[in-house]
Amino acid sequence: MITVALAKGALLKDSVTRFAKAGLDFSAVLDPDNRQLMVPSSCGRANALLVRNGDVPVYVAYGQAQLGVVGYDVLREQQMPVAQLVDLGFGGCRMAVAVKETSGYLRAAELPPHCRVASKFTNCARQFFDELDLPVDLVHLTGSVELGPITGIAEAIVDLVATGRTLKDNGLIAIEDLFQSTARLVGHPLSLRLDRGNLQEIIEAMRS
Amino acid sequence: MITVALAKGALLKDSVTRFAKAGLDFSAVLDPDNRQLMVPSSCGRANALLVRNGDVPVYVAYGQAQLGVVGYDVLREQQMPVAQLVDLGFGGCRMAVAVKETSGYLRAAELPPHCRVASKFTNCARQFFDELDLPVDLVHLTGSVELGPITGIAEAIVDLVATGRTLKDNGLIAIEDLFQSTARLVGHPLSLRLDRGNLQEIIEAMRS
Repeated sequence: MITVALAKGALLKDSVTRFAKAGLDFSAVLDPDNRQLMVPSSCGRANALLVRNGDVPVYVAYGQAQLGVVGYDVLREQQMPVAQLVDLGFGGCRMAVAVKETSGYLRAAELPPHCRVASKFTNCARQFFDELDLPVDLVHLTGSVELGPITGIAEAIVDLVATGRTLKDNGLIAIEDLFQSTARLVGHPLSLRLDRGNLQEIIEAMRS
Repeated sequence: MITVALAKGALLKDSVTRFAKAGLDFSAVLDPDNRQLMVPSSCGRANALLVRNGDVPVYVAYGQAQLGVVGYDVLREQQMPVAQLVDLGFGGCRMAVAVKETSGYLRAAELPPHCRVASKFTNCARQFFDELDLPVDLVHLTGSVELGPITGIAEAIVDLVATGRTLKDNGLIAIEDLFQSTARLVGHPLSLRLDRGNLQEIIEAMRS
């Protein structure tokens, strides 16, 4: 039995569509009345595990799911030991540094040393500012990071930007990108090594 | 101007009720149409900052909010430098170790050494098992921790239990409590030291 970890939320619909093309129909997870977190495919060959975005790499790294779909942003932040198999192309967004529109900063390097930067992705932010050789004080927040510059807890934020609407609504502007992110198919390394073809078939179908 | 950090979710309604008794009416935050994250009190003397549970101690520790209401569970997990002022009594729940009902384990000490334990509260769990002198492999999950024993990623979980309904629905049973949790009024230490009476007045009113 194959288990696939799917992230609840924005990536779910496209994830189901792509698995359907590979012969695994998980459309039951899209039923708004569904309360199950473990949902069998209509063919009975596989189970979908509906978990939070950040938990997909955990279930795949521990081998409780052989495959999973998750944003590249989460993979970069968590650095879990999973195999990145296919860039699925959907769920496009970018990790960016943003500041108040009125701040006058045009590049991340212009931020004052030791300023505070709020983010849900403090590992990504740390790496970025380390490479820039700019010491900053990172403030880890778990939500509504755009509040950072408004409340004054941080001068800048590092956050995912899709349409840019949230930034605009809060008087913020993105000044530099860390990286682009899309949904990725990931796999459990040992399961891939022991695979007798079942997993490879799905991976190949999802690649095309 | 006083800023109060309030946790969105289960604690919000009671938090608003208690601040109303202390003369700060934040009932606008309960309006289902409210989209604002910073909401002035009706008297204009204070602002409520609507943030995630886990972000309340961050805003208070950095002094962006002078007061905040948050669960004791979050305070125990995060260990941020905030002053614990009043046990508000509501939002009661307990942090507990739970296992599959069919597992046969009756106490945490019976769990096999080096077994895996899933939790959102890995700091609390680590401290508990360290004191028990039982080495366990902690798996950090961000949601639906009750899936842990079902999927086999963990033999036990450490999670908040309020009614016990979620455990029961998933065939789990709590075998040991780590601690009881309730909502706490917390404050920014420096703001409390510099306070000319405004904050103390609110704190006293909320204590009664």
